[in-house]
Amino acid sequence: MINLLHTRLEQSFEEMVKIRRYLHQHPEVSFKETKTAAFIADFYRTLDIEVETNIGGNGVIARVYGAKPGKTVALRADFDALPIQDLKDVPYKSTVPGVMHACGHDRHTATLLLLAKVINELRENLEGTYVFIHQHAEEYSPGGAKPMIEAGCLDGVDVIFGTHLWVTVPTGTLQYALGPIMAAADRFTITIQGKGGHGAKPHETKDAVVAGAQLVTTLQQIVSRRVNPIDPAVVTIGSFVADNTFNVIADTATLIGTVRTFNDETRNFIEAEIERIVKGTCLSIDCTYEYLFEQGYPAVVPNNEVTNFLLKSTESIKEVEILHEGDPDMGGEDYAYYLQKVKGTFFFTGAMPETTGETIYGHHHPMFDFNEKAMLIAAKTLGTAAITYHQNS
Amino acid sequence: MINLLHTRLEQSFEEMVKIRRYLHQHPEVSFKETKTAAFIADFYRTLDIEVETNIGGNGVIARVYGAKPGKTVALRADFDALPIQDLKDVPYKSTVPGVMHACGHDRHTATLLLLAKVINELRENLEGTYVFIHQHAEEYSPGGAKPMIEAGCLDGVDVIFGTHLWVTVPTGTLQYALGPIMAAADRFTITIQGKGGHGAKPHETKDAVVAGAQLVTTLQQIVSRRVNPIDPAVVTIGSFVADNTFNVIADTATLIGTVRTFNDETRNFIEAEIERIVKGTCLSIDCTYEYLFEQGYPAVVPNNEVTNFLLKSTESIKEVEILHEGDPDMGGEDYAYYLQKVKGTFFFTGAMPETTGETIYGHHHPMFDFNEKAMLIAAKTLGTAAITYHQNS
Amino acid sequence: MINLLHTRLEQSFEEMVKIRRYLHQHPEVSFKETKTAAFIADFYRTLDIEVETNIGGNGVIARVYGAKPGKTVALRADFDALPIQDLKDVPYKSTVPGVMHACGHDRHTATLLLLAKVINELRENLEGTYVFIHQHAEEYSPGGAKPMIEAGCLDGVDVIFGTHLWVTVPTGTLQYALGPIMAAADRFTITIQGKGGHGAKPHETKDAVVAGAQLVTTLQQIVSRRVNPIDPAVVTIGSFVADNTFNVIADTATLIGTVRTFNDETRNFIEAEIERIVKGTCLSIDCTYEYLFEQGYPAVVPNNEVTNFLLKSTESIKEVEILHEGDPDMGGEDYAYYLQKVKGTFFFTGAMPETTGETIYGHHHPMFDFNEKAMLIAAKTLGTAAITYHQNS
Amino acid sequence: MINLLHTRLEQSFEEMVKIRRYLHQHPEVSFKETKTAAFIADFYRTLDIEVETNIGGNGVIARVYGAKPGKTVALRADFDALPIQDLKDVPYKSTVPGVMHACGHDRHTATLLLLAKVINELRENLEGTYVFIHQHAEEYSPGGAKPMIEAGCLDGVDVIFGTHLWVTVPTGTLQYALGPIMAAADRFTITIQGKGGHGAKPHETKDAVVAGAQLVTTLQQIVSRRVNPIDPAVVTIGSFVADNTFNVIADTATLIGTVRTFNDETRNFIEAEIERIVKGTCLSIDCTYEYLFEQGYPAVVPNNEVTNFLLKSTESIKEVEILHEGDPDMGGEDYAYYLQKVKGTFFFTGAMPETTGETIYGHHHPMFDFNEKAMLIAAKTLGTAAITYHQNS
Repeated sequence: MINLLHTRLEQSFEEMVKIRRYLHQHPEVSFKETKTAAFIADFYRTLDIEVETNIGGNGVIARVYGAKPGKTVALRADFDALPIQDLKDVPYKSTVPGVMHACGHDRHTATLLLLAKVINELRENLEGTYVFIHQHAEEYSPGGAKPMIEAGCLDGVDVIFGTHLWVTVPTGTLQYALGPIMAAADRFTITIQGKGGHGAKPHETKDAVVAGAQLVTTLQQIVSRRVNPIDPAVVTIGSFVADNTFNVIADTATLIGTVRTFNDETRNFIEAEIERIVKGTCLSIDCTYEYLFEQGYPAVVPNNEVTNFLLKSTESIKEVEILHEGDPDMGGEDYAYYLQKVKGTFFFTGAMPETTGETIYGHHHPMFDFNEKAMLIAAKTLGTAAITYHQNS
Repeated sequence: MINLLHTRLEQSFEEMVKIRRYLHQHPEVSFKETKTAAFIADFYRTLDIEVETNIGGNGVIARVYGAKPGKTVALRADFDALPIQDLKDVPYKSTVPGVMHACGHDRHTATLLLLAKVINELRENLEGTYVFIHQHAEEYSPGGAKPMIEAGCLDGVDVIFGTHLWVTVPTGTLQYALGPIMAAADRFTITIQGKGGHGAKPHETKDAVVAGAQLVTTLQQIVSRRVNPIDPAVVTIGSFVADNTFNVIADTATLIGTVRTFNDETRNFIEAEIERIVKGTCLSIDCTYEYLFEQGYPAVVPNNEVTNFLLKSTESIKEVEILHEGDPDMGGEDYAYYLQKVKGTFFFTGAMPETTGETIYGHHHPMFDFNEKAMLIAAKTLGTAAITYHQNS
Repeated sequence: MINLLHTRLEQSFEEMVKIRRYLHQHPEVSFKETKTAAFIADFYRTLDIEVETNIGGNGVIARVYGAKPGKTVALRADFDALPIQDLKDVPYKSTVPGVMHACGHDRHTATLLLLAKVINELRENLEGTYVFIHQHAEEYSPGGAKPMIEAGCLDGVDVIFGTHLWVTVPTGTLQYALGPIMAAADRFTITIQGKGGHGAKPHETKDAVVAGAQLVTTLQQIVSRRVNPIDPAVVTIGSFVADNTFNVIADTATLIGTVRTFNDETRNFIEAEIERIVKGTCLSIDCTYEYLFEQGYPAVVPNNEVTNFLLKSTESIKEVEILHEGDPDMGGEDYAYYLQKVKGTFFFTGAMPETTGETIYGHHHPMFDFNEKAMLIAAKTLGTAAITYHQNS
Repeated sequence: MINLLHTRLEQSFEEMVKIRRYLHQHPEVSFKETKTAAFIADFYRTLDIEVETNIGGNGVIARVYGAKPGKTVALRADFDALPIQDLKDVPYKSTVPGVMHACGHDRHTATLLLLAKVINELRENLEGTYVFIHQHAEEYSPGGAKPMIEAGCLDGVDVIFGTHLWVTVPTGTLQYALGPIMAAADRFTITIQGKGGHGAKPHETKDAVVAGAQLVTTLQQIVSRRVNPIDPAVVTIGSFVADNTFNVIADTATLIGTVRTFNDETRNFIEAEIERIVKGTCLSIDCTYEYLFEQGYPAVVPNNEVTNFLLKSTESIKEVEILHEGDPDMGGEDYAYYLQKVKGTFFFTGAMPETTGETIYGHHHPMFDFNEKAMLIAAKTLGTAAITYHQNS
């Protein structure tokens, strides 16, 4: 059965590439990805596979029922693109100005569509139910996972598998983590209200630029002094804006940043410590403030048992050469929400271009591209795990 | 003669107010003040007073020749307005959206025009030459004084008098300084070039926001530690801009600020110290930088002898109740250039509204207004000094 | 054989406690521990066990030869105390003012002595050679391990086992790590040379306190911004001294601190980054500096294979209830040097007092004490691993 | 009369030098200057001049009564030395190890003694009363002036004159100020209480060194941003002590500093602003603090009328070549208390060595010395002002 799955996926690779390239040429940004959703739904409808659309927004769900009873396994792929201008010079480059599949969700989608097609072909010999979750809006908090779950996409699901093709991991390697694999990604905004005035008369003002600068400096202590050194955390101020003419003292300064953590205790601690430092700094300089902390996606925490099961199931896949326990990635993923609801796992499928000596452009880069063979590896890994899971349970 | 001057000025006060209010309704920003220049020139032409236009830009010069030989005395008034929306509710409020005489250059102009008119009437009994310098573009560096001087407005001039009507000084008071009365006002721009990246991966970046914050903090030491405490100086960062999305680490940050000093040694020292700190901070954080220091107007340094002469000459003016040696003002004035070229003085004519209990709105405030009687006091003071100067020299 | 070992160790427990308490009453600080060394040597001599003294300083080595040929296994215990005043109220409290076994090296010694005694009794039935390394001066870099190794204590040794009794781990638990278990612990000293002067005349000085303060603040960025968040690191300034009268500006400030890391790349990177920041800060403030970075002990990196072997060998020990993979500890240990030379492992033997509700005083605390039963567990674990190692190899 | 005064002082110069050198060889530190006080009293007793000792401590007062009635004029000289080792190589160098007249109070004393002797000789022709105030303990707050005033040394006094010989002012110049001439000199102590711990475990601590560093950095803003730039002020942290071993995180840090201001409003403002910043910083870092602000001597504020009178009276003194209105000095002097009680003035008598090309060592320097001719100038200036004051009043 597994052999058959692999063979059929190999035969589908050409179509997989074709679909991926079509999607790459027609990217849509988060929450606007209606044509992509329609494309996905049409694919399933053409194959007479059960499909539901507009799940929690633009989400699409397809279901394949094995001939025999069994558990319900979900597989997830996201399909939104980014507001980035494609600068690659390839035949399949984006045709939409300022929008690009710069994180590879096009390939996630193509991978899952063809895997679904093959599983559907094999369904007479399969047990249980296969749920194909095509999720919109992964790139932009609050994301599509949450409303899709609220709309019931995990109802009855026993286990979920997902992967992200990863361009900095060599093709042929699967990277996993026992423990969190991606971070909680939160956003905060601090507005310091001082008292503006003439640049020549600081004593009549409360200088919001000076207060903001002091704040950025003191915030460094959260990671350097207050969080356990073995507990990874990041506090970044990405934006500092106090836009005035040169001879004015700033009335207000606005700082926007992100926090990355791997557990709720540290996440909540940092949320509170930022406020402590904002409060102390503003007291020092006699300013007031507003502080808004918006929780983004939580950490992605795979179930170790499911992860070990998946790793073991890859023994049959010839293209999987290395299983690498890697460091967790500080980025965020709303796949986290699925894992809060049902057990499952998440891993990185190596997708590094094979040409040696070439610059590798990272995710979200305008030159981003990857090794399309990785799609086949991802399809085999997800499909093998899904089918094997039924057989073993 | 002085009594006659005073009487005639008193009789001209109504016209002075009328002109001032007309100008107040028709403000023009620096370097665009062509209609105001034309209005001034027309005023002189109507009176058959010699007038030259387009001096160093929109500048206007008028000359009155006394019947007897003597020295040449210059009197200066500026006439540009500011890009500020007038929020006052008075019949003579600005009719130009977003433009306003918020610093009182309208009244300087009205004062000088009527003073010229009266002096012209008295010319048969006067010695020497009177040069009335109507200067454009005081508010915006590099200003109008410099090109007007280059165009020859001070040629042959022996002494110059000027004043600024000042709303925070009580009407009836003249405020002077023995030593600098207004500061050198310079501008600097610092661009920090770090290396941007993902907000979750600080170790792959050189964070320009953190570097800029450190810089603002360290720059405080120039005034607190390096400049002689009895030598007034200001270093202000008015603008700090690193405008990114929350999850990005800033590639670059731009800081713009002003320096105020009262002597060249300190001015040059601070210019160099800023660069020292920029260099050190960027070395610490492995960033690069660009640093541009643009000298604005130098300090306004009156000649003490001329100042004392002027003070003494006010004994005959009944409205001048108090002569107050005040602290120098940290603001800048391109009147400084005249004093670099010829001896002269500059003082503040008190123009505080007399209504008690009312809020006094400062210069450059959208509600700014002043006591019009101050125009008469200024006219008498300048006129008395000018005429007396001839008699005494 | 293993059962016999365990029984004999149980019978030796009373003597073990007696020796530990004697040593606790007679502590000696690092590099001065001559009486302790003599005590250890006497113990072996009385038993006719081969013993060498003054190995690389005060180090002592004993050797027991099994009747049959085999590998050579080393076991290590340190025996120095700390310059801390013992504040406990127990019959066996320190009799030396200001000196105390506040880290438990007394119990390490007692454990190893009795284990050696029992192994010596069993030697007719044992293979190979047992080397008992009693190391002086663990507490004070450069430590005793390095000179003992240079003096040959590891010559011919195939594997080494060591443990630290750990008061914050429950008795009955062994805590291990796959990967580094203790950090590299380095020391640095920064002397900032400014220019002193009168407290009222900052402009004539270069303020070393202000420079030092700026430095401490900027150094926070190494951990917060420059080191990979998932790579644990600590930079601590423990000491900041610029000791002057109130009205003097500091000529010099001395900062002393420690760096903790788990790999050489990060260790060397931080060494260089500190200097970068020192250099940049001193440039900003026109000071000079001296920077001394003294590498202390490297990270303790056990061999995973040996660790797994030891863990498996504890199955026979009834007192070992839990094997816990813990986070690495940021503290340092010169046991690191042995592991750089031969393969081996290191682990924490839980020694938490069993009385509930009592405050647990940490290592180096004047009230530090522990559960003596842990000595028996440590002896059994080390002995079992050592003997089993011969049998398996 | 004035001519006679001058001639007699010239004739006394040799004795003046002799006494000064004797005192220079026998210095005594503040509050311990009993032998110097006895020496002064003996000098007066030998001349049958009325003298009182132990005024408010070691203070000595002598009084000379003119034959005619008149006002009461006080003249003040201080006589304490400093805990500094004399490093000069001159016959009259200090014979007391570690103690030295490094600020010139020896010459103040010699000057006043001989001036008193001459005035006593001329008393038949003088009006009014002359009070010679020999004050102890000027160098060490709370100083000797306050208790001497409380003990009545100014009772009945109409005016007071005093001078400080000043080595950085050329001999022949008198330097005065219209407005404050010396600053208020206060002292503050801040103790930050964090929570100490192991240098490798910052998250278990509240790092007092980091808090102290942040504090020093933020305190710079008081002068750079909050005090009017034209109002001179200094905030110096002279001492920062957190003295620990390298691998400990500081429990506590102690900062000691000084504040210099010229008016009470700014003085009180800075006292409060320091606390605001201490409070805010400690809130940021979750530490507690103690803050002690000890007011030292207030600003020395001469009466302008008296100053102008004194300046005019120097016309008769041939050695006074230049009257220079100088910047105020940021140092403190408890002469301030006399001026809070009676009108009077204070000025600097130039005492720069005349040898050109030689290094000039400042006050409080171990190589400090000065031009002895300045004593004669000071005696003439004080004596002339005192006698003239009677004649004019």
